[in-house]
Amino acid sequence: MAESEIEKFEAEREELNRLVLERAGKEMKRFFNVDAGVYRDGALPAKVKELLGLVSSLVLRCDDCVTHHLTRCNEEGVTDGELEEALAVGLVVGGSVTMPHLRRAFRVWDELKGEGRT
Amino acid sequence: MAESEIEKFEAEREELNRLVLERAGKEMKRFFNVDAGVYRDGALPAKVKELLGLVSSLVLRCDDCVTHHLTRCNEEGVTDGELEEALAVGLVVGGSVTMPHLRRAFRVWDELKGEGRT
Amino acid sequence: MAESEIEKFEAEREELNRLVLERAGKEMKRFFNVDAGVYRDGALPAKVKELLGLVSSLVLRCDDCVTHHLTRCNEEGVTDGELEEALAVGLVVGGSVTMPHLRRAFRVWDELKGEGRT
Amino acid sequence: MAESEIEKFEAEREELNRLVLERAGKEMKRFFNVDAGVYRDGALPAKVKELLGLVSSLVLRCDDCVTHHLTRCNEEGVTDGELEEALAVGLVVGGSVTMPHLRRAFRVWDELKGEGRT
Amino acid sequence: MAESEIEKFEAEREELNRLVLERAGKEMKRFFNVDAGVYRDGALPAKVKELLGLVSSLVLRCDDCVTHHLTRCNEEGVTDGELEEALAVGLVVGGSVTMPHLRRAFRVWDELKGEGRT
Amino acid sequence: MAESEIEKFEAEREELNRLVLERAGKEMKRFFNVDAGVYRDGALPAKVKELLGLVSSLVLRCDDCVTHHLTRCNEEGVTDGELEEALAVGLVVGGSVTMPHLRRAFRVWDELKGEGRT
Repeated sequence: MAESEIEKFEAEREELNRLVLERAGKEMKRFFNVDAGVYRDGALPAKVKELLGLVSSLVLRCDDCVTHHLTRCNEEGVTDGELEEALAVGLVVGGSVTMPHLRRAFRVWDELKGEGRT
Repeated sequence: MAESEIEKFEAEREELNRLVLERAGKEMKRFFNVDAGVYRDGALPAKVKELLGLVSSLVLRCDDCVTHHLTRCNEEGVTDGELEEALAVGLVVGGSVTMPHLRRAFRVWDELKGEGRT
Repeated sequence: MAESEIEKFEAEREELNRLVLERAGKEMKRFFNVDAGVYRDGALPAKVKELLGLVSSLVLRCDDCVTHHLTRCNEEGVTDGELEEALAVGLVVGGSVTMPHLRRAFRVWDELKGEGRT
Repeated sequence: MAESEIEKFEAEREELNRLVLERAGKEMKRFFNVDAGVYRDGALPAKVKELLGLVSSLVLRCDDCVTHHLTRCNEEGVTDGELEEALAVGLVVGGSVTMPHLRRAFRVWDELKGEGRT
Repeated sequence: MAESEIEKFEAEREELNRLVLERAGKEMKRFFNVDAGVYRDGALPAKVKELLGLVSSLVLRCDDCVTHHLTRCNEEGVTDGELEEALAVGLVVGGSVTMPHLRRAFRVWDELKGEGRT
Repeated sequence: MAESEIEKFEAEREELNRLVLERAGKEMKRFFNVDAGVYRDGALPAKVKELLGLVSSLVLRCDDCVTHHLTRCNEEGVTDGELEEALAVGLVVGGSVTMPHLRRAFRVWDELKGEGRT
């Protein structure tokens, strides 16, 4: 997806999160807080935690989750080499069934890095 | 499991790997090599890669994989705090269905750290 | 998706079911009958069974299944509060990887309830 | 498993939960609280929520989770007929790969109902 | 597992099937019939269908299902070479997370072929 | 999808594979080679291996994988009857959650066979 599409994705994600939180009861809201909390800097830096989120999302084959963690990995300064090696772990653990998601992950990464393929 | 049980687990794992490789054809053997290769030091240190393998194994709920990566994490010097935070990411991503594996992971970790609970 | 899109979804679903049943052998046809049978009123009311189908679909992360069970839950008179609590169980059991499906589920529910957000 | 084995299972589960909570950081502890919260009486009765947890656990094929929700279903007064119909939904949604768990679920239920087969 | 253990496994499986069918309602019983039906000789021979069941079970990581299909594959005359190649497809599709099941599959196969390792 | 859409799908798949391989490190490249290798004629003919890949993809619910293996099954001369029986195994193993993918699989197959529904 083009960079503007990633922005559109993130904007839609935020809008739907607002809808969810409007509808959410107490426990669901707390879940969202816990979800935000586990990626914060701690004994492990946020960068490593985003890589953990990314690879977990890849082996569970969730495109939206992969795209979100890729934008966060980019913000945390993950390099091309680090990304490739993290995705390679996910590919081997999760098998060839992760390949369609791997292909899309590299395309999103390319767009995030502004190398703008068509 | 007690520390001797972890050793027994690793010994049985090695013995079965030998059986598999005896039976394995060319592609299966290459898969085993690739599997060994992705956890080696590179742009990302082996320690981070083992954490990626651990959390992937937790969200996919594979006890044997979790136990193996815990022994490797211990060898790579992962601290208690780092381990807890990595498992917390896995718990949130994978949900309460990972809890039985999380419980067993902490028990294995305890044994690996030699704190010998009964 | 807008209400007309849900109708389009259900229409396409029906059309494809016809294609499947045209192609289906004896066992596949019987599977479709069993699938219809398990949601009928019995010891448990159809409403509870649709909630079971909904939450199962959420934890298995099948958008089409979630959308279908949401339309059925709406027909069976599930309230907003009941829906939120059922989805909260699914979110906690299945983890943050179900969130993209949860977001879309609330959007579909909004449309089904005719509150027409854009 | 015999009734005493179910008690042993629950006792071990509690002991390991204590170990986890001793080791757990803030977010992991909050997750455990959310997990307890979503099964409480609300717009949906606890009984229905336990059935939702049971069927989710069956389709995700987690024996420990199934056993735990069966004990809770029994406490909430779920009847044999209700249980069978809930499990039938899970079997159809999750397929024959859930059968080994279905078999064990009925065995646990038998023991919980005190009908003591050998 | 030793050959006698496989026999014990199959005997327990049969006994539990009897328990399930005693408890099962109409739809669950029909599901069991459909499950038996799809592996019968047809346009595809039973041997190929058992290989399909085996590899599906491997990628879904169900040990009981793998063991059952291995006994059926053996009865249908699957050769060592055919088995290895089928499992290799499953390993690549499902990734390294299938490895513990692959190891056990080869051990069961060894026992079925009567080569009796200790 | 119409036949031209399948061609478009295969073309996009190839283009993304090129992007992946440009970015891929040594282990990822080797994984791609192993993935190609396991479907080649051997003790089992390529046709059976493609059916194994197809059914594995169905139970793991990967539309892109299903579409790819359907095109390969068509090239290997799989008949309508063989296809239906293989998919029936996948449906029963994987449950009703595979149905949306089954519907799309039959639509793709129809297009591949040139029967051109609209």
